Amino acid sequence: MEETTARRKPTIRDVAAAAGVSRGTVSRVINGGHWVSPDARSAVEDAIRRTGYTANHAARSLATGRAGSLAFLLTEPQHLLFQDPTFALLLRGAAEALAQRSMTLVLLVAGTPAERAGVATFVSAGHVDGVLLISSHEADPLLEQLLEAGVPTVCCGIPLGHSAHVPTVSVDEIGSAREMTRYLRSRGHRRIAMIAGPHDTPGGRYRLVGFEEEMGDDFDAALVEEGDYSQESGAVAMTALLERSADIDAVFAASDLMAAGAIAALRRAGLRVPEDIAVAGFDDSGLAATHEPPLTTMRQPWERISDEMVSLLLEVIAGAQPQPITLPTTLVVRGSA
Amino acid sequence: MEETTARRKPTIRDVAAAAGVSRGTVSRVINGGHWVSPDARSAVEDAIRRTGYTANHAARSLATGRAGSLAFLLTEPQHLLFQDPTFALLLRGAAEALAQRSMTLVLLVAGTPAERAGVATFVSAGHVDGVLLISSHEADPLLEQLLEAGVPTVCCGIPLGHSAHVPTVSVDEIGSAREMTRYLRSRGHRRIAMIAGPHDTPGGRYRLVGFEEEMGDDFDAALVEEGDYSQESGAVAMTALLERSADIDAVFAASDLMAAGAIAALRRAGLRVPEDIAVAGFDDSGLAATHEPPLTTMRQPWERISDEMVSLLLEVIAGAQPQPITLPTTLVVRGSA
Repeated sequence: MEETTARRKPTIRDVAAAAGVSRGTVSRVINGGHWVSPDARSAVEDAIRRTGYTANHAARSLATGRAGSLAFLLTEPQHLLFQDPTFALLLRGAAEALAQRSMTLVLLVAGTPAERAGVATFVSAGHVDGVLLISSHEADPLLEQLLEAGVPTVCCGIPLGHSAHVPTVSVDEIGSAREMTRYLRSRGHRRIAMIAGPHDTPGGRYRLVGFEEEMGDDFDAALVEEGDYSQESGAVAMTALLERSADIDAVFAASDLMAAGAIAALRRAGLRVPEDIAVAGFDDSGLAATHEPPLTTMRQPWERISDEMVSLLLEVIAGAQPQPITLPTTLVVRGSA
Repeated sequence: MEETTARRKPTIRDVAAAAGVSRGTVSRVINGGHWVSPDARSAVEDAIRRTGYTANHAARSLATGRAGSLAFLLTEPQHLLFQDPTFALLLRGAAEALAQRSMTLVLLVAGTPAERAGVATFVSAGHVDGVLLISSHEADPLLEQLLEAGVPTVCCGIPLGHSAHVPTVSVDEIGSAREMTRYLRSRGHRRIAMIAGPHDTPGGRYRLVGFEEEMGDDFDAALVEEGDYSQESGAVAMTALLERSADIDAVFAASDLMAAGAIAALRRAGLRVPEDIAVAGFDDSGLAATHEPPLTTMRQPWERISDEMVSLLLEVIAGAQPQPITLPTTLVVRGSA
C-alpha cells in the first residue's frame, strides 16, 4: 500500500511548536516521561493527538513502563575493562543477547566508592530496568544497595558474604579446579603450585578449594600464592613460589593472564614451559590460544554465561525468583601443560 | 555535634512500608521520578515527610532536575572499543573529568542501525543529561536524531556533512598532517606515501588534505591508500602501495595502528624500518612508545580532549552555545621515521 501525498509526516518539531514546549520536552514525554512537569506532559500529549505524530518505539515504551535497557555493571577500576580480556568476552555476549531482544546495553564502570555511589543512584532512579553485576568482591556494598533499592540484579559468579537470595549465573568453580588438578596429576606432576585469585572473589576462593580437595594429602599450603588475576600479579607470585620451593613441577593459575605472567617469570628464571615446569590457566580468554606456548586451560562458556544472565535478569524483572544457574567448563589441552 | 539516640535513621524500607509501595518505587521517586504514577509519587512524598527520611543525592537530583550522568557514545562496532586504543584513552579522560564533578559516565556502543535506534531512544528519554559523541561517520543519522530530539551533544572531531551548529572539540587535523609531512620531507624523503583514514571521517579526510597541501607539486595520488584505522587495514594498504610503486621512501599513516600494520607488511616484504622506508603514525596512542621500532607520531592531547568535551557539554546543558574548540598536537620523534 503506497501512498502519494503532498502532506509530510509530522515531526517532533511540529509537536513541540503545537505544544509550545521545546523539542527536548516532547522527546522526554514520548520516550517515557523523565523530568517533565504534569502540565507540559498534558500539552505534549494533546499536541501529539492534534498533529497526528506517531513513533513506534514510544508506544512500546509507554506500554511496558520500562526503560528498555539493562546495565552491564563492572565493579572494577576502568583500566581492567581493557586489560582483562574476560570482560570484553562477557560484554560482547551481553550486547548480542540484548540486540536480539531490541534492548539497549548500558555499560557502567564503578571502581571507586564515589563511582559506586553515583552508579547506585543512576540505576536506582530507573534509568535501566536491571543490572548484570560483573565481578563482585566480598563486602562490596553496591550489591546490598541495589537489592535494598529493589533494583533487579543478576550476579556473574556467586557473590561472597551475601545471605540474601541473589540470582546468579556461575560455572562450577570447585569442580572445574578439581578437573584441572586431576589432569596435572595424571601427567605425573606431584609438586603442583597454585596461583589463586583474590580470596574475596568467588573464582579466587572456590578454585583454591577445588585444588586443595583434589590434592588431598599432597596439598602443601607453602605452594599457594594469591594474585589479582592480572599478568603482573602472576609473574610476582611465580617468582615468590620459585624462591620458596625448588621442586615445583607444575603450576595451576586461576586465570590465563596470571598463567602468562607465570610463564614470563619462569623464562626470566631460565626455566622452560612445559619441559621444566608445566603451567595451566583458567578462562580460555582469547589470549590462551595465541600465547606462546598455547595455554592449557579451563574454558568458561562466555557466550552462554552472558546469554543466561540476560535471560535470568528478564525473568527477575518480570517478577520471578529464578533458581541460580551453574554452567559446565571444558578442559582444553594445548602446549603449556 | 554528636547525637546519641536509640532511634535509628529511617530507611527506604520504612518509607516503602509507610507509603504502601515497593522499595523500587520509593527509590525511583527519590532519584528523579521515572516510571512512577502520580498517586504513587504523592504517597511516597507523604511517607518521606512522615518518616523523616533524608537522602542527600535525592535532594540534589530533584533540585537540578537532571540525571547527573553523561553518555560516552561510540558509534562503532563494539570490538573496536577494545582494538583501537584511542577509545580507551578518551574514555579514561572522560571518566576522570566526570568523577571530578561527581557525575556518572554511561558508556553506550552503537555499531548497528538497530543499536543506534535503541541508543537514540535511550538518550532522548532523558536517561542522561547529554552525549559525548565519539567517532561520527559522515551521513550517520544518529547525530541528526540527537539534535532533532534536543539532546545536548558535543562531538569529538568536526562531523562531516552537518550544516547545523554542533559544538566540537577537535585537533587541527590539517595543520597536524602538514607538520608531519614537513618533518618527513626535512629528513630527505621525497616519495612519501600516505595511508589515509576513512574519507567519511574528519581524521580521514582532513589529514589527507594537509598531506596533499604540504606535498604541493610532489603530491602523487598513486601513493595514497585508504584504511579504516585498524592494524590489518594498514598492512593491506602498505602491500598495495608496494605493488604499485617501488621507490617509496617514507609512509605517513593516519593512525598508529595502521603504521604498525604497515611496518609488519614491510617486514614481510623484506624491508627495514626506518633504514629502507620510514614510517610515521598519528595519535601517540600508547602502542606507539612500546612498538618495535618505537613510532614517530603526532600526539593528540587525549586527556585534554576528554576534559574539554565534558566542560563544553556542561555548558551546552546549561543553555550556552559555545564556540568549537581546536587543540594543538605535538610531533613526537622516535625510531620509526
